[in-house]
Amino acid sequence: MSEFFSNVSKIQYEGKNSDNPLAFKYYNPDEVIGGKTMKDHLRFAVAYWHTFQGTGGDPFGPGTAVRPWDNITDPMELAKAKVAANFEFCEKLGVPFYCFHDRDIAPEASTLRETNKRLDEIVALMKEYMKTSSVKLLWGTTNAFGNPRFVHGASTSPNADVFAFAAAQVKKAMEITLELGGQNYVFWGGREGYETLLNTDMKLELDNMGRFLRMAVDYAKEIGFKGQFLIEPKPKEPTKHQYDFDTATVVGFLRAHGLENDFKMNIEANHATLAAHTFQHEVYTARVNNVFGSIDANQGDLLLGWDTDQFPTNIYDTTLCMYEVLKAGGFTTGGLNFDSKVRRGSFEPIDLFYAHIAGMDAFAKGLKIAYKMVSEGKFDKVIEDRYASYKSGIGSDIVNGKVGFKELEKYALEHDQVKNVSGRQEVLESMLNKYILED
Amino acid sequence: MSEFFSNVSKIQYEGKNSDNPLAFKYYNPDEVIGGKTMKDHLRFAVAYWHTFQGTGGDPFGPGTAVRPWDNITDPMELAKAKVAANFEFCEKLGVPFYCFHDRDIAPEASTLRETNKRLDEIVALMKEYMKTSSVKLLWGTTNAFGNPRFVHGASTSPNADVFAFAAAQVKKAMEITLELGGQNYVFWGGREGYETLLNTDMKLELDNMGRFLRMAVDYAKEIGFKGQFLIEPKPKEPTKHQYDFDTATVVGFLRAHGLENDFKMNIEANHATLAAHTFQHEVYTARVNNVFGSIDANQGDLLLGWDTDQFPTNIYDTTLCMYEVLKAGGFTTGGLNFDSKVRRGSFEPIDLFYAHIAGMDAFAKGLKIAYKMVSEGKFDKVIEDRYASYKSGIGSDIVNGKVGFKELEKYALEHDQVKNVSGRQEVLESMLNKYILED
Amino acid sequence: MSEFFSNVSKIQYEGKNSDNPLAFKYYNPDEVIGGKTMKDHLRFAVAYWHTFQGTGGDPFGPGTAVRPWDNITDPMELAKAKVAANFEFCEKLGVPFYCFHDRDIAPEASTLRETNKRLDEIVALMKEYMKTSSVKLLWGTTNAFGNPRFVHGASTSPNADVFAFAAAQVKKAMEITLELGGQNYVFWGGREGYETLLNTDMKLELDNMGRFLRMAVDYAKEIGFKGQFLIEPKPKEPTKHQYDFDTATVVGFLRAHGLENDFKMNIEANHATLAAHTFQHEVYTARVNNVFGSIDANQGDLLLGWDTDQFPTNIYDTTLCMYEVLKAGGFTTGGLNFDSKVRRGSFEPIDLFYAHIAGMDAFAKGLKIAYKMVSEGKFDKVIEDRYASYKSGIGSDIVNGKVGFKELEKYALEHDQVKNVSGRQEVLESMLNKYILED
Amino acid sequence: MSEFFSNVSKIQYEGKNSDNPLAFKYYNPDEVIGGKTMKDHLRFAVAYWHTFQGTGGDPFGPGTAVRPWDNITDPMELAKAKVAANFEFCEKLGVPFYCFHDRDIAPEASTLRETNKRLDEIVALMKEYMKTSSVKLLWGTTNAFGNPRFVHGASTSPNADVFAFAAAQVKKAMEITLELGGQNYVFWGGREGYETLLNTDMKLELDNMGRFLRMAVDYAKEIGFKGQFLIEPKPKEPTKHQYDFDTATVVGFLRAHGLENDFKMNIEANHATLAAHTFQHEVYTARVNNVFGSIDANQGDLLLGWDTDQFPTNIYDTTLCMYEVLKAGGFTTGGLNFDSKVRRGSFEPIDLFYAHIAGMDAFAKGLKIAYKMVSEGKFDKVIEDRYASYKSGIGSDIVNGKVGFKELEKYALEHDQVKNVSGRQEVLESMLNKYILED
Ligand SMILES: [Co+2]
Ligand SMILES: [Co+2]
Ligand SMILES: [Co+2]
Ligand SMILES: [Co+2]
Ligand SMILES: [Co+2]
Ligand SMILES: [Co+2]
Ligand SMILES: [Co+2]
Ligand SMILES: [Co+2]
Repeated sequence: MSEFFSNVSKIQYEGKNSDNPLAFKYYNPDEVIGGKTMKDHLRFAVAYWHTFQGTGGDPFGPGTAVRPWDNITDPMELAKAKVAANFEFCEKLGVPFYCFHDRDIAPEASTLRETNKRLDEIVALMKEYMKTSSVKLLWGTTNAFGNPRFVHGASTSPNADVFAFAAAQVKKAMEITLELGGQNYVFWGGREGYETLLNTDMKLELDNMGRFLRMAVDYAKEIGFKGQFLIEPKPKEPTKHQYDFDTATVVGFLRAHGLENDFKMNIEANHATLAAHTFQHEVYTARVNNVFGSIDANQGDLLLGWDTDQFPTNIYDTTLCMYEVLKAGGFTTGGLNFDSKVRRGSFEPIDLFYAHIAGMDAFAKGLKIAYKMVSEGKFDKVIEDRYASYKSGIGSDIVNGKVGFKELEKYALEHDQVKNVSGRQEVLESMLNKYILED
Repeated sequence: MSEFFSNVSKIQYEGKNSDNPLAFKYYNPDEVIGGKTMKDHLRFAVAYWHTFQGTGGDPFGPGTAVRPWDNITDPMELAKAKVAANFEFCEKLGVPFYCFHDRDIAPEASTLRETNKRLDEIVALMKEYMKTSSVKLLWGTTNAFGNPRFVHGASTSPNADVFAFAAAQVKKAMEITLELGGQNYVFWGGREGYETLLNTDMKLELDNMGRFLRMAVDYAKEIGFKGQFLIEPKPKEPTKHQYDFDTATVVGFLRAHGLENDFKMNIEANHATLAAHTFQHEVYTARVNNVFGSIDANQGDLLLGWDTDQFPTNIYDTTLCMYEVLKAGGFTTGGLNFDSKVRRGSFEPIDLFYAHIAGMDAFAKGLKIAYKMVSEGKFDKVIEDRYASYKSGIGSDIVNGKVGFKELEKYALEHDQVKNVSGRQEVLESMLNKYILED
Repeated sequence: MSEFFSNVSKIQYEGKNSDNPLAFKYYNPDEVIGGKTMKDHLRFAVAYWHTFQGTGGDPFGPGTAVRPWDNITDPMELAKAKVAANFEFCEKLGVPFYCFHDRDIAPEASTLRETNKRLDEIVALMKEYMKTSSVKLLWGTTNAFGNPRFVHGASTSPNADVFAFAAAQVKKAMEITLELGGQNYVFWGGREGYETLLNTDMKLELDNMGRFLRMAVDYAKEIGFKGQFLIEPKPKEPTKHQYDFDTATVVGFLRAHGLENDFKMNIEANHATLAAHTFQHEVYTARVNNVFGSIDANQGDLLLGWDTDQFPTNIYDTTLCMYEVLKAGGFTTGGLNFDSKVRRGSFEPIDLFYAHIAGMDAFAKGLKIAYKMVSEGKFDKVIEDRYASYKSGIGSDIVNGKVGFKELEKYALEHDQVKNVSGRQEVLESMLNKYILED
Repeated sequence: MSEFFSNVSKIQYEGKNSDNPLAFKYYNPDEVIGGKTMKDHLRFAVAYWHTFQGTGGDPFGPGTAVRPWDNITDPMELAKAKVAANFEFCEKLGVPFYCFHDRDIAPEASTLRETNKRLDEIVALMKEYMKTSSVKLLWGTTNAFGNPRFVHGASTSPNADVFAFAAAQVKKAMEITLELGGQNYVFWGGREGYETLLNTDMKLELDNMGRFLRMAVDYAKEIGFKGQFLIEPKPKEPTKHQYDFDTATVVGFLRAHGLENDFKMNIEANHATLAAHTFQHEVYTARVNNVFGSIDANQGDLLLGWDTDQFPTNIYDTTLCMYEVLKAGGFTTGGLNFDSKVRRGSFEPIDLFYAHIAGMDAFAKGLKIAYKMVSEGKFDKVIEDRYASYKSGIGSDIVNGKVGFKELEKYALEHDQVKNVSGRQEVLESMLNKYILED
């Protein structure tokens, strides 16, 4: 098949002084940082839905995107063209992974059986490409929210037939993820939530969601899928209230259903801020709960109340994200998946390259800054000093469970003129700026 | 001691046509609804902090409140006057309960020992009042956030001496709550959270919070305190991020620390909306997790981003709150505590009565509406019908764990032309209006 | 043409005890309130776009709506069917008006000339219907935001050809509005705003928007269109920042461009809250600036950050809206246009009736309550008393411009022990509840 | 008088590699950028209220701040000590300006006459200091919101005596600002707004605010005050709705009251974001309306809903602010006033230095980046190209008023196949990053 982006060659690293928007300024894939290449640190992935399925449509108008496959009308031919485009695009960008929903790669047919056949056909084609391409599958997932049958949810639908359909769909999506060597399988809540409590049985819906995830775990064992299961929290949109509100909520849900050892988190930056948390907070929360898995790399507009899925360019966010990732020991099966869409106004094909390059550079620079922060250990030192009182004496007794209220009261009566020290927030923000701004 | 509100007599129920702002229009304490008096259903409480300690001060100016005890200058005399005022106020309003923080009832002295003595003196006085008064203690709690020593938190302070001090303080507050027959003991997060992650060890802080709560449970057993422990979620303010973000977060935290059987929730309406949930959502979430305990009755302004603690007058909110309370089987140890403050502009003593009456009437009417909704069962019927598919056939098999992905795929392949029915949100909202607006 | 909603007859008023969701409980069109029928007070309109063009699609999935015209595939046949459906629907509901965008009523063709011909054909058909129908056109407007040509705005596009196209489109839309006897012509900002300041010349864009509106005014004179021009503020969505942010912003813009006598406001409830104002605030602001025109009746979800355009059922909002409308002397050319869409989950045709009835009843009841509030004058009395100091003495001198800082300093030095009275917010909220809850 | 900050010497510029938190890394006052020193570009000012009056108190606890004047108890002695501290602090920091409210510098007495005498005493002392100090007064203002008399507003109070008192207070504050050579006089809305519309006459309040500002203008002429009047917009807090919502609102208000030539804007970053605008948007809006005056330099937390007044350290914000300031031709009478407070947890005196240095460095670096952006003109070129169609042909005719709807329709019918180009947002964000991250 001929090239789709014939005017773009493989993107090269040209260094920070380059003015070429088709070159990397910071992302130098083979550059080694702390014994690991940038490529292995960052594990970038392209999101099939935004990049090959996105049109730029919004609630106020249809798509604006101009794409090199716009002339193809047959649905399966179009699907095959996008497979080719995906591998071409990832290779030219030097992105080692891609991610998809089942319905991104093959269009739904009128019956489930026929739909699954279509999937098989596309998966076979993908496998063919993957024989020669270095591009791998980071994760697969299911689109169980777009089709009108999921109007009231999938595993949380009030209609048991919908639960069954969703189960069949996830089963198949897990199988093809396995077939393609996918390293993770993601659950994003879709329409798992409610529009109004007036018509909702929240208890049954939550229990059913738990049952559904349990079945997925069981089926993975059955077919030998060893990839990591991931849940991607989001607080609202499309439903008024999404059950997987944020990391803390999901962690609590998993514990309540005995699933805490089977799932990790796929944290999306924009979902974090929609839930009124910083991106760093969500990654940190996942880390300290031992459920950090992967990242949906994008950014939101904090002055807007919906999921804008913008390409990530804010250097504070990429730095602090990578700081947490490094603290978590780096990615294992996870990676940085660009769940990001070019703006409706950035409708030309070349914008797809520009935007990914912008995001990759922002994360590459963020990694470099974060690595320096971690390796110099200044922030660690601040924290170590700040909590030093828990290393000995009464603090150590508290941590080690040697004292209770009575002992502590006794201690406090003798030590009631407490001395604190400043938290130094402004100094620390300035320190962070120094890392970001210095060469 | 002479009266403080001498121009106000016991507030009477005059019925819905009354124009008297010093009379109840809906709250008729002895009126029986479903076999229980309104008084027993609603279990109102006055919050000592807002009503006897509140000044109307805000970050832009000092207090405006004019209070009958303004002429008293000696701190302990003032504290005693407020005890008298509390019982007079509750009795005149016909409110059966009050709630307090330790520091509301007795001012802190220069040493912890002396502070505790002051507490003992006031508690003795309160007990004296309670011999003849019908007013009881709904719950006690600790103010471990106001004093500068708690600048970086209490149980989550980086300073172990602060942890110890907070422990001593809660120990004492539990003792006096027990002494006064308090039916619950509340933990509100105070400054348990962080200002910036740059200086925070979130893991240690969360673990310490768990250790602290465990010590409280242990000490309660030791002293025979049988009251219910309650946690009151809040997402932000005073800290940028409060650990007890919302009910789901707290439930997850409790499970992670093996405390899920020892704590229930005290849901505050304004904290719910600050966390981007409806008030009903939070009560419902507590209910389905079996942790519903009590209510901090107030309302926020959804167009403002801080905790306004307004008196609750929105009839939708009071109705849907009472709907959930009735669904939960009604209050056991909990109640409706007015964690509400008169506006800074409502600075006259009489406004304290007006405001409580406004809130009590709003909840009394809400109870009546909710009771009718529950007893007529129309909303229950809607939900029963909507989820009927889980009562038999494949739905029943799902709920009973009889099927997995393979069986469901088989089913779905044969039932892939799914039929859904409308969720009818607009009809249900109209139905709710009918309950609210009809006589 | 045969009926589209054959299972629905003309909706009747059955009174507040009715349980029939296809009957009015409060809207009794011929009931006279203060010398005017409810129909004339409320001047309801159906919005063509939501009701006949809406599909229930959202950014996460295509439409769910089931409509009686779904089997029609030819675009112009479909357009004609919807004309019939519109008149049938409005008549059955007893709604006296409808509103449309040009592109709602006739689909765009490949050339502007052909598109205009299509419009003429549909307009002729509408005129035919209007000969026998009592249903009138409240207002027309232009959809200059959906088509990809408007990706960067219409009158504020960086592309002058787009400005010209938009001008041609508004010209035609004004002509057909005149032809159909439309009483107003509305400008909603569409994509008049920006996505990022990095590529925006805000000054030129704002000036061009002013030039565009001036041309519209001039052209109206030329063709003898006497209807009222309206601007509908919205702060964000679809663009990151919409120029017509809120009423105050638009009023300032109009004054800056000498257009303040040519435009009034079309206030949408959901846009008000997106701009962090109450619905009442926006109507009040329009009223005191003498630019109150019309209402887009809907409601938002204050816990969500996007324009949900829900059917209005909150009785506080409808009451306070009608209170302001009555204070403004009632509608003249304006009315209550349901810029409201059934939820994606309310996808059945019958939901269109249910939802409009829910909204009409909520406004009818709101009108009745508001009328009582206005006629009893208790709130007016509160305000009159509260500001009485400006009726005489120094207050009167201030208002009448008789004093300056020197005189006021002299006065203040002699009157520096100021006495204020409580603002009584809680009493007033309780008073409002009494109006709402009483029969 | 002895030194207050004796452990701190004059802060030196040590360059970007310095790790000394008591040295500047970017602010090099005499460094010339584009023909002007950094000092003259930035015109930093210290805010008396936060730095010398701030305590770290919040609604949940009293102040934590430890200050070298804590041992002084006599109010006027304390006031005098703070005068000394102000000059010492500004000189050590090398900040050329300070700003104050009347009540910051001298405590209120029991009568207005006595209060004014206190002001005179302090002002005389300040003048004495200013004879030898290089530190100047950037602006003065009035605190007409803290004292309980302003509970319902100042110029918008329902009580005419309060209006008179506020007038007397502003009169005096203008006089002392003149006396001290202040270059501007600021009006921040204080409590000019409302808590509930139920008790508010918005029309009278707005008109009175207009009358008040008119009196100020008249009195300035009378006394020969030539400084610039500034209004500082804020959307909410302390009141639920502040009348000076944002720049666009204030500009509209000024035009409505014929005051548009007498006032410019003092834009505060945190107020911008509370109003759902970016900081840049507000400065840009002021610029294109010819009302840009001065800056209150701070930053908010976009995930919090209240005015946090944090020290500005976000390099994107300082860069884009300075970009707009340079585009506006630089400051004339205005400057960068740190309306910023150290966090409650940053309670040590040294934190005052740390925090100001953090903010000054962030703005100094922002200036350098912005200057490079402006002088290289790449962003200007992008905009020039993007809007080129308005320089000739139909675009030029539009701008020059040569065409109306008829001519444009004619043109559009012939040019209806419009071609747009991408807005390139992602490229531009990457370009901005390059400026920020490069050396
Ligand atoms: Co995502
Ligand atoms: Co997203
Ligand atoms: Co509370
Ligand atoms: Co609260
Ligand atoms: Co609208
Ligand atoms: Co809308
Ligand atoms: Co300010
Ligand atoms: Co501020």
